Formats: sequence, C-alpha cells, structure tokens
Amino acid sequence: MAQKPSIPKGTRDFSPAEVAKRNYISSIMKHHFEVFGFQPIETPSFENSETLMGKYGEEGDRLIFKILESGEYYEKAIETISNIDEKSVMYIDSFFTRFFECFRNDCRDYAKDNDISSWKTVRFFFEELSVKNTFHSSREYHYLHEYENLLVEFLNDNKEYILSRVFDMDYFFESVEVFQNFNNNQKIEIQSRFIDFIKFSKLSKIKSNKLTPLISEKALRYDLTVPFARYVVQHQNEIEFPFKRYQIQPVWRADRPQKGRFREFYQCDADVVGSTSLWQEVELVQLYDAVFTQLGLGGTTIKINNRKILSGIAEVIGAKDKLIDFTVALDKLDKIGEEGVKKEMLEKGISESAIEKVQPLFQFIGTVFEKIEKLNDLLSTSEEGKKGVEELKFICETIEKLGLQSAKIDLDVTLARGLNYYTGAIFEVTAPQVAMGSIGGGGRYDDLTGIFGLKNMSGVGISFGLDRIYLVLEELGLFPDTVTATSKALFINYGNAESFYAMEAISKLRRSGIKVELYPDAAKIAKQFQHADKRGIPFAVIAGESEMKENSFGLKNLQTGEQVKLDFEELKKALM
Amino acid sequence: MAQKPSIPKGTRDFSPAEVAKRNYISSIMKHHFEVFGFQPIETPSFENSETLMGKYGEEGDRLIFKILESGEYYEKAIETISNIDEKSVMYIDSFFTRFFECFRNDCRDYAKDNDISSWKTVRFFFEELSVKNTFHSSREYHYLHEYENLLVEFLNDNKEYILSRVFDMDYFFESVEVFQNFNNNQKIEIQSRFIDFIKFSKLSKIKSNKLTPLISEKALRYDLTVPFARYVVQHQNEIEFPFKRYQIQPVWRADRPQKGRFREFYQCDADVVGSTSLWQEVELVQLYDAVFTQLGLGGTTIKINNRKILSGIAEVIGAKDKLIDFTVALDKLDKIGEEGVKKEMLEKGISESAIEKVQPLFQFIGTVFEKIEKLNDLLSTSEEGKKGVEELKFICETIEKLGLQSAKIDLDVTLARGLNYYTGAIFEVTAPQVAMGSIGGGGRYDDLTGIFGLKNMSGVGISFGLDRIYLVLEELGLFPDTVTATSKALFINYGNAESFYAMEAISKLRRSGIKVELYPDAAKIAKQFQHADKRGIPFAVIAGESEMKENSFGLKNLQTGEQVKLDFEELKKALM
Repeated sequence: MAQKPSIPKGTRDFSPAEVAKRNYISSIMKHHFEVFGFQPIETPSFENSETLMGKYGEEGDRLIFKILESGEYYEKAIETISNIDEKSVMYIDSFFTRFFECFRNDCRDYAKDNDISSWKTVRFFFEELSVKNTFHSSREYHYLHEYENLLVEFLNDNKEYILSRVFDMDYFFESVEVFQNFNNNQKIEIQSRFIDFIKFSKLSKIKSNKLTPLISEKALRYDLTVPFARYVVQHQNEIEFPFKRYQIQPVWRADRPQKGRFREFYQCDADVVGSTSLWQEVELVQLYDAVFTQLGLGGTTIKINNRKILSGIAEVIGAKDKLIDFTVALDKLDKIGEEGVKKEMLEKGISESAIEKVQPLFQFIGTVFEKIEKLNDLLSTSEEGKKGVEELKFICETIEKLGLQSAKIDLDVTLARGLNYYTGAIFEVTAPQVAMGSIGGGGRYDDLTGIFGLKNMSGVGISFGLDRIYLVLEELGLFPDTVTATSKALFINYGNAESFYAMEAISKLRRSGIKVELYPDAAKIAKQFQHADKRGIPFAVIAGESEMKENSFGLKNLQTGEQVKLDFEELKKALM
Repeated sequence: MAQKPSIPKGTRDFSPAEVAKRNYISSIMKHHFEVFGFQPIETPSFENSETLMGKYGEEGDRLIFKILESGEYYEKAIETISNIDEKSVMYIDSFFTRFFECFRNDCRDYAKDNDISSWKTVRFFFEELSVKNTFHSSREYHYLHEYENLLVEFLNDNKEYILSRVFDMDYFFESVEVFQNFNNNQKIEIQSRFIDFIKFSKLSKIKSNKLTPLISEKALRYDLTVPFARYVVQHQNEIEFPFKRYQIQPVWRADRPQKGRFREFYQCDADVVGSTSLWQEVELVQLYDAVFTQLGLGGTTIKINNRKILSGIAEVIGAKDKLIDFTVALDKLDKIGEEGVKKEMLEKGISESAIEKVQPLFQFIGTVFEKIEKLNDLLSTSEEGKKGVEELKFICETIEKLGLQSAKIDLDVTLARGLNYYTGAIFEVTAPQVAMGSIGGGGRYDDLTGIFGLKNMSGVGISFGLDRIYLVLEELGLFPDTVTATSKALFINYGNAESFYAMEAISKLRRSGIKVELYPDAAKIAKQFQHADKRGIPFAVIAGESEMKENSFGLKNLQTGEQVKLDFEELKKALM
C-alpha cells in the first residue's frame, strides 16, 4: 500500500481540537438535558433491517446503509432465488408429459396422412406446432403463468435438442412406430434442462433491490427516532411513563456527500413519550433557550407552528392536497412579494377565492399574539384549526410569562417540516447573524410507537444540529479558549536522572488533576521547546541538574519568555 | 408488525442507569488520559475496506462487518463477474474456426473412406472426435486454459445442437459437398452460445468471499489501532510527534455472540506514537494505576513482560516455533504442577535438555526484582533477551521508586498476548477479587504505521476493557450512588394555574443546575407520587393552591415521608 490511505467520502476524522470543541457543545447539551429531567439511553449502531425499512419512505430506504451478512451469504441467497417450489416442479412434469403425448400423437397422425421421409419435414412440423397453444390449453397454466415466457423461450431455443431426444433418428426414418419408443428418461432430461434454464434466468435477472434483503439482515441507524420508538415498545414493561429520554449518537445516511452533508453525523435528540401535556412543549422551548444561552449564542429564533393550524388552512382553502404547495409558496413572501406568491399559488391550482380567504396571511406581521388573533379569526370555521390556535396560544403565553433567557419565539405558519408525521407543535431554530439554515427542530407526533404495535403513545421532541451549531460557534468565535486547552506545561527532558526528578513532580501534579507532560526523549532542547510551541502548551518546566540540586523548578512562560525559579508548591500553584 | 421488535443478536440497548454507569467509567478514563497529556481523536465508524482487510489475519477478515454498496451494486458486480476479456473472445472465435475446419475436413475424409448414409454414423463420428485433443492442439490453449473444462462440458452438452447447426441434414445425406456449406453465421451462433454458457457458469459458481469485494467497499471499524495507524499516516503533516492520542469509540465484530462477547462494544485506547522512550511505558503503568485507583478498584495487578524476553527464551530452548506452546504450558504451572507442565512440553516436542536450561522458570517466584535477576542469568547467552531484561528493569525500577497509588506490578513471563505484533513491553491488567480475565492490556509495537507506508514509527499503548470493568465494579458494588442519580425532585401537578407557579420555581432551580421536573399531567396525586418513587426521585414538591397563596412549597422526603414547608430560597438550598 504505497499511496496515502484515505477515508470513505462523506466521513470525517476529528482532530483533538475538533473533538474538544464537539465535546464542549455536547456536554452543554447533556447538562441541560439532565437538568430538565431527560435521561440518556443508547441503542445499537445497527438494527434489524425490518425495524428500519419502510419507516422513512422510498428515498429513505435507499439511503439506509445495509450490512452484508457474513459467511456463505451468496450461496444461501442463490438457493433461495433459484428455488422452484414443489408444486411448480410437479406441474412442469405434468406439462411435459402432456406436451410429448400431444406431440407424438400429432406426429403419428401427420405421418400417416403425409409422406414423412426427411428430417426437414420433421423440423417443419415442429415449427408449425404452436408451443404456446399447447401450453395455454394446459390445466397448469395458471400456476405456471410466471414461467410462460421462459417456457416458450426454452422450447424455441431447444427445438433441435428436443427433437433429437424425443426421436431416435435411425428408427424414425425406418418406422413411424418409433413414436412408441419415446421414453421417460428423455422427458426427464429435457425437463431438468428446463428447470436449469429457469434457475439461470432467475439468477441473471435478479435486481439489487431484490437481492439486498437476501444478503443483508441488518442496517445502520438512520435517525434516532425510529430506534427510540423501537426501544420504547421493546422495553415498555421496564419503562416508567411518561419517559423523558435523550440520545446523542451517530447516524448514517448513504446520501450524496456535499458541503455540510455527511454520511456519518451525530444527532442529539430529547423526547418525551407517554403524555399529551402541552407543558412538554413549554419545557422544550425552555430547553432550547437554556442550551443556546449557555453556548453564548444569544438571539436565536425558535419558530413555532402547529400541524393542526396547517390542517385548518388546508380546510379553509378547500384543498388538503395543495397544502405543501401553499406553504412553500407562502414562504417566499419575503423574496418574491405578495403578487409573486399569489401567482405561484394560482399556477399550482389553488383557486383565487381560496387565496382571497387567507388574505390575512399575506400581511402576517406583528407580535406572536397578534398573529395568533389573526389565525383565530381566519380559522374560525375549522374545528381542527381552532384547536391548533388554542394549543399555540397556551404555549406562547406560558413562555411569555415565564420568560426566556436569550432566545425569542416567533410564529411561522409556513413552518411545515416533517409534515407527514407531526400532529401538533412544530419547532425550528435558526441562529442569529449567520446564514446557516436551521440548527434545531422538532415537534409532536401523536402516534410515535404505532409502527411497532404500541398504540396511543404521544411523543414530542426536539433535535439539535451538532455540525451546524459547531459551524455557527466557529464563525462567531464563540468557543472559549479553554476548550481546546492542551497540557499546561511540558517538562524538558535532560536525561534519565533529571527525568526521574521531573517525573516525581509530574506524578504529584497529575494527582491534583493538573495536565503536565514530560518530553519523552532527551532530545535537543530547542526541539523540545518547539514541540511545546507547536502543541500550544503555554509553559515549559526546566528541571535540570542545577534545579535538582536546589530542589527547584524553572517555569518558563513560552509566550512572554519570562522565567521564574519556584519550589514544588509554588510550581503547583502556578499551574493550577 | 405485530410481534415485539427486537435488536440484532450480540448488540445491546443501554438503559439510563446503564448509560450513566458507563459514562462514569469513561469520564474517569478521559480525565486521566487528558491529565497524562493524551488528546482525543475520533475516526469514522466505517473505513475503506482496503484499510482494514488483511490487517487482522484470515479470521479477522471474516469477522469484519462489510457494508453493502447502495444503488445497482449487483448489476455492476454481474457485469464484472461475467466479463470475458477481448483477447479471450478473440481466441474463442479463432478456436471455433479451427475446430469446425478440422471437424469438416475429418468428416470429409471419413465420409470418403466409409459409407456415411445414416445420422447414427455421424453421431458416432462425433463421439469419436476428441474434443479435448482438438482443444489441446490449439494455439490458444494457454490463454483459454481457464475455460478448458467449460469448453469440454459445453461441447459434450451441445453435441446434437452443434451437429444440427453445422450440417444441414437434408443436404448432408445428399452430398458430402455439404461440408462446404457450413457457414459463418452458424459458427457465430454456437460461439455466442458458448460465451453465454461461460457467463452462466461464472455467475452460478461465484462464492461469497469472491463476491464481497465487488459489492462492498466499506467496512465497520474492527479495532482502534488500525484506524489510528491510518490516521497518523494520513495526517502525518499536521501531527506534531511524539503524538499522544486517546480514543473511546465502538468497534464491531461479527463474532459468534456469547456471554460477555458482543458484536458492538467500546474500546478505550491510549497510545503514543513517534518515540521509543521507555518513559512512555512508565507513564502507561501510572495511567492504569490512576484510573483504577479513582474507580475504587484497589489492588489491581499490572502484569508486565517483554517480547524480547520471550525471544530470548525461545533462543535458549532452541525452538522459536515452540514459543507459544512453551508459554501456554508454563502458564499452567499453578494448575498442573511442574511435572505436568514438563510433560506437556515434552509432548509438544520441546527437548528435555531445553527444559533443563530454563529450570529457574519453574520456581519463578519472589519480587519483581528477584525475577529480573533470575532472567538476567537465564538469558545471559541471548543478546535480545538481555535487552528485554534491561528494558524491563528500567520500567520496574522507575515505577518502584515513583510508587503506585493502589496497583501493583508483577513480572509474568507467560504473558504473550499479541505475540505477533508486540516488539517490546507487554501489559495486562487483572482485577482483584473477581474472576474476570484481563480488564486491560497493551504493549509496544515498533512498526505501527508500516502497513500504511510510514516506516520507523514506534508506538506503545494500552487499552481498557469497558465492559469488563463495568461488570467488576457492579459485582463489587463500586458504583457511587450518585452515578445513577435521576432528578432531585418532582413537582406535583395540580392543574395549569398551580403548574405555572411550579414552573416559575422550576425554571429558576434549573438555571442553578438543579435537576427538577414537573409531572406533565394533572393526574391523580397517588399516581404522581408513584411515578417519583418508580423513577427513584428522592423528593416531591407540593405546590398547590394553598402553597401558591402563601408563596411557599411543601418539600416531601419520599423515603422518610417527612414534609416541610419552605420558601423558594429554602427550597433551593434543600435541593442543592
């Protein structure tokens, strides 16, 4: 392996500085998750395929990384693929018996009526014989239907062969009685050749998507929500509900890698399952506020909406199927203006009168509470819409009264993420100052665990986008200097005797939790100082022969170049 | 999906209590790794297959989890598998031309000399014709060698077919001149049938281990050492050497699951690369001591050995290939006694005089230093052995002088783990009181990154067995009670107005880092208390109508049943 090794596209190595920064973010999340009463769980990196497949739509199924079975997986798969069930084999047998009977009888009649004296005539006769008709008249037709084309193909391809087996040529030209001599072995031979032909056909035509379930039973986690639902159902008897869990683990998606989109990335989720209380929504907004406040990311906007409000709008415009077109168009209000949005809506087939009815949404400005009032009027004819407004009102009023530390909430009726599964509140968080898209999102889904057979378990949760939060903090310079701190001091190595003196001090310092290192080799002093510099270590400790004698240490500040002589206790204090 | 969902065998869900305990262990490791100057890195869960394959022996290759490519991977694989290169196709063409020429010429000669008047004679002639001889005499023999068996099989299977194509039967019986009529189309037809036959043959005979590299390019991490070596080589220009890194990440092995052996488990490794200094070994022993001391696991034994000592012993007994047999037998000294061990050694082919030479190893007791002296005498004739003793002496003497907090070191000449790659020190840690096998191990390998083309990079490292340490701490009851601590108090929910009052207090308590929760629904009071009880929450806070009026809180100790009335500041103090 001469060329430099590499990692798969869409994956990343994290250097010490990157790991430290990522840990800084996730430890703040963890702290607040726990303060808010969420408890950590972890699930396996791979799940049984049946747990994941079919849960994320067709596109999702495609993007799930599948794990190859080990051992002789392909031999087993071939056996399954090329398997022809017993009933089919029985019917194939019965078909060939009938086929040859008909064929011989027809031949005998034909020979009697005509002059059969040459091979050419026999071949001609075979051409005339409608294989397809023989097949169609067969009782087994319906059962063997899937093999019809294969059978026709086979008989055509193997005409000469079949003729040569059915008839012994010498006898054929001597006597028509030869037809009696056709024997069972020849039938079996032809039949088994046909079965091989089917197997080959099945084998060479199989598509990857049909093969996959035969050679892969496990798949890498695609998100944390489905494994959480599986966990809740599997452990329902051990769990005390309502169950508040958080989970910070990687997920994998076979997406085309691009800037900011990876094939392995962390999700950080906090969910509550087993209660429909709106206090959860209130707490989740507070949780976002607490985390982003501590990260120093003041001024995040927590956008909030409600699936029932969207349903109400769909009712009012009289077109449930146009809801996504509607919200997508409305979301462009800032960019293309009211006329542009209306034009797009009309193009999408939303009627002029429907657009008229929701006119207030085009001047949807003001405080959250003014917006709520507007929605209340607008959705007065929709029971579900009114319910959505009521829920939203409770959440926003409570938040308003309790107060947030640094975030603000806003009502955004175009917020429709996860439209297919959310049933109540919908959240999305955007960072201030930086164009980055959402750095978090979530919502309520009334039937979280239904896919695994446990009904009536409402869940509500939020997610933090670790990678994007990282980029925002980096761009705004919000990582504290202490985050990437390396060792506090490097002890210079002057040889074994001096190193032993140094190591005695190092051992004691470390027991007090102070990060110090000994340069491992008695290399040139300049090289050792350079090492400290490159590593970003702020101090060097000189513990050479003269220091040993005096029982002292030289502490050199590598930024200022200043050096002081200290005893151990002073050194310890200086490095604390 | 009616049946309860499950997870793949060999994998685990971790409950909140388990995650908390695991995090307790790994956070102590992390702390000491960093205090000792190790920095964290993370590598992707999957690597390019070529990075991993061939690094762990044949058995290892089998146990690596491979990830299936997405998209039409099988169609692409089939194309590759059934591909017949252009040169082969050319030679097949040339072979068939020659074959039919020979065949026709032979037939013409035969027909001249004999009476060819019946089909039977022609068939007989075909039987006589040695296909194999024709083939062997072909110029293309060597190139087509791999197809030889297929060709013979094909010609035998398709005799009738070939005859029917090569000769037009009518003309055949009319004139021998028919041989001139054999035309190219028929040759091409037969030839293309042969090519299909080869493709089918290749397709149906392929084995899983040959298919795997065609349908899988990525594989799950099998350990942390190979990805670390890959990381070092890939990032060599960004790394400041010596490089001390730690890594705590899961690895995956398709091993047969059994008690204590999982298909997904964490490895916790600390390694230094880029220095041969023995101070690293000293520090790694101290690191083990620091971690196990803080975990409360006093009295661990750090067994130490050196690969060079093992080589020296092999030299002395004059049988390098018997080294493993020798150490395995010697390791049974406690169980089967000196005579038993010697008997086993003789059975394994170690000579009596060789056993005589290492007699001191059978009374290998005393302090580490007494053992070192014995080895020094024993290995006096082996340069490498003496070097090993010297290394060991430096490490043990330094450790002895610096002192350990709770661990003890012991010299164990039977310690041979990772014999194939370790080149210097070998470590293994065993827990006291519990029969658990090793809870850690490591050693030095002089050529860590050579497999990826970077020579002369010595590495030394140790690993902690998280799962086993967990089991030991559990068995000895060493997890502090605080580890699994859930919320400190549950605020009872008496309805929305009261909950608002509670939530004001909760928000303030949380901002002080105090873990408190509101029961989300105004359920029956008994149910709420039961919830706190089942969750192990020690206090309930009563904040009902009367408390609201008095601006107070009732704090109930759920273990004693004691209840006190407090104002907010008192409550905060009580829950701190």
